[in-house]
Amino acid sequence: MRVGIIGVGCSKFGRRDDVTIQELSYEAVKEALDDAQLTQDDIELSIVGCVGTRSYELMPAVPINEYCGFTGKGPMRVEAACATGSAAVYTAYTSIVSGVADVAIAIGVEKMTEVDTPTSLAIGGRGGNYLWEFHQYGTTFPGYYAMHASAHMAEFGTTEKQLAMVAVKAHRNAAKNPKAHFQKEITIEDALGSRYITYPLKLYDCSPISDGSAAAVMASEEKIRELGTDDVVWIESVGYGSDTSNMTNRESFVGLKASVIAAETTYKKAGIDRPVEQLDMATVHDCFTIAEIMAYEDLGFCRKGEGGKFVESGESDLGGKLPVNTFGGLKAKGHPLAATGVAMVYEVVKQLRGEAGNLQIDLKNYRALTHNVGGTGHFAFVMIFGR
Amino acid sequence: MRVGIIGVGCSKFGRRDDVTIQELSYEAVKEALDDAQLTQDDIELSIVGCVGTRSYELMPAVPINEYCGFTGKGPMRVEAACATGSAAVYTAYTSIVSGVADVAIAIGVEKMTEVDTPTSLAIGGRGGNYLWEFHQYGTTFPGYYAMHASAHMAEFGTTEKQLAMVAVKAHRNAAKNPKAHFQKEITIEDALGSRYITYPLKLYDCSPISDGSAAAVMASEEKIRELGTDDVVWIESVGYGSDTSNMTNRESFVGLKASVIAAETTYKKAGIDRPVEQLDMATVHDCFTIAEIMAYEDLGFCRKGEGGKFVESGESDLGGKLPVNTFGGLKAKGHPLAATGVAMVYEVVKQLRGEAGNLQIDLKNYRALTHNVGGTGHFAFVMIFGR
Repeated sequence: MRVGIIGVGCSKFGRRDDVTIQELSYEAVKEALDDAQLTQDDIELSIVGCVGTRSYELMPAVPINEYCGFTGKGPMRVEAACATGSAAVYTAYTSIVSGVADVAIAIGVEKMTEVDTPTSLAIGGRGGNYLWEFHQYGTTFPGYYAMHASAHMAEFGTTEKQLAMVAVKAHRNAAKNPKAHFQKEITIEDALGSRYITYPLKLYDCSPISDGSAAAVMASEEKIRELGTDDVVWIESVGYGSDTSNMTNRESFVGLKASVIAAETTYKKAGIDRPVEQLDMATVHDCFTIAEIMAYEDLGFCRKGEGGKFVESGESDLGGKLPVNTFGGLKAKGHPLAATGVAMVYEVVKQLRGEAGNLQIDLKNYRALTHNVGGTGHFAFVMIFGR
Repeated sequence: MRVGIIGVGCSKFGRRDDVTIQELSYEAVKEALDDAQLTQDDIELSIVGCVGTRSYELMPAVPINEYCGFTGKGPMRVEAACATGSAAVYTAYTSIVSGVADVAIAIGVEKMTEVDTPTSLAIGGRGGNYLWEFHQYGTTFPGYYAMHASAHMAEFGTTEKQLAMVAVKAHRNAAKNPKAHFQKEITIEDALGSRYITYPLKLYDCSPISDGSAAAVMASEEKIRELGTDDVVWIESVGYGSDTSNMTNRESFVGLKASVIAAETTYKKAGIDRPVEQLDMATVHDCFTIAEIMAYEDLGFCRKGEGGKFVESGESDLGGKLPVNTFGGLKAKGHPLAATGVAMVYEVVKQLRGEAGNLQIDLKNYRALTHNVGGTGHFAFVMIFGR
């Protein structure tokens, strides 16, 4: 059975002291419902994705569902670290395919600036296995991705300038996206001149701490026919992967095995073997600039080690062969953990429907990809969407 | 497509300082894999249910999957407060029906005695909507269920003695269950003589703080045929419900609307309209004795208001018309939050396969029910199993 996306919504990303987590969720929910031309009564199931450890609501699914008008319809919260949004989409998708619901909404939301407890600090340091690397060595996220970057530079000659190019591209796109956290272009010099956070990653190599939400209304093919919805973006295939949480157990630091597993699964189902030619665009998980470069390789956009050259060639720019992160990416649009995966679906749907305004890409294949990573490759989801 | 349970496992419940959360999980996983005569290689998907706020591992899915040999196979954690175990079973079930995986494992695990942070205190007080009732009035779980009990006593004349009967039955069954937290029978006098926690609930009306884990291996009908598994318990239907997190918004205190919604859905799908006659046994969410009495009514085992008489009549005893919580229930077997929902599946499978030893019920219909509640009726799952 096919499942289609019939409505999407996304809040303004950024520091959102003006709203509670419930109100923030509703911004995306309202837009998604309006987009689908449905009301709360039409929704049978609501899946809330929220990491939740940085806001007051530690079990946020119920108050969010209640505020948004989905009381009685929300059986759970899902969490997969920074891939939580995709986990929500996955759960709504499998629920529809399995016949539990005909119309569902996936909500991803995060308030990251509300509390600063030991809990949130621990989470900041580690997406899993607290007792080992984080507790023992105090390694934080920039530290982990810095290890990836150093390894990539040592093995393939990737340069700090190539990392900076990812940031410049992200800011260039985000500057045209009114919902982005950062709406300011930067130059290579700005990026290269910013202070080191953890060598070789500098300030402009890191995604910000953002608040935000996104929502996607999904329905079965039969229900979509019944509703008479025209503009449907179909979920063609869904793949997931996971990997050890101990960096010391990883076979390699120059890529994420979870991404490779997830991509292989989803490509196989969707019949994709030349993604650059078969897809029109992609959103990838660029929590740090090196993450986007590794994603190019892990997802088969270029060969292993050539991710730096791929960004340098301009092929991932708006006018390139395979535009990547056209709305500004996690890097500049922002990365409110659980919102990210659903916001990727928002971006893909807007692009495939030709509604991306001055960020619109050319449509040829009418197929696009989302790639969402949790932790340092602890979780990964890769999904293919088509219209 | 039908999904069957082909292997179940359950750890010893209780204070488990002897194991990490990973090791605790593995106790159930090992038993479930052995029961299914499978190894880790055969499992394609692992769904971990864990509330997690009372243990060191705040994002526990990855380290648990890694320790148990499911690296690469675990895309997320699910959470639905005390109904988290059922959310894990639900997610594995919908994943199989939707064709994402043919063989999956649902793991529910909780370490509740590891940390005592402000986080765990907040959670102890509230399964949702921190900022309103808990923060404002400091209401804790016994307080919430005491309101239910008072309302039930006022409206229907339910007595403290009837509440005590639930506890006595639970302890009588748990005394014969080597995996139960409490393995000691109590008398009505013990229960009625125990100190008040929150009037009218006394010590013996409350479930304990337990550590524990449970696991269920599930597969598609086609895969089960391929494996040649004989002893399969099928998931006949799955229902869920949710309700407002504000008690002040509830229409009534004498029952849980979420349970009623979940039961209606699942009964409709399974064609059940006379549960006492059509089922052989049930597990219900007796976090407090009043919760079991309300469950009898919400699930249609008796009429509204007659739950007290139902336990008094002995119909929910081992030899009764519809034995309930044959392994001792949350009350005496223990209630390690996320383990509970999966442990209910363990109990139902053991009973339906005739492997419950000196707690075995008579099998006539070969159908049984699980009922798992999160928060004070914030979430509810009701599932029907058949052999």
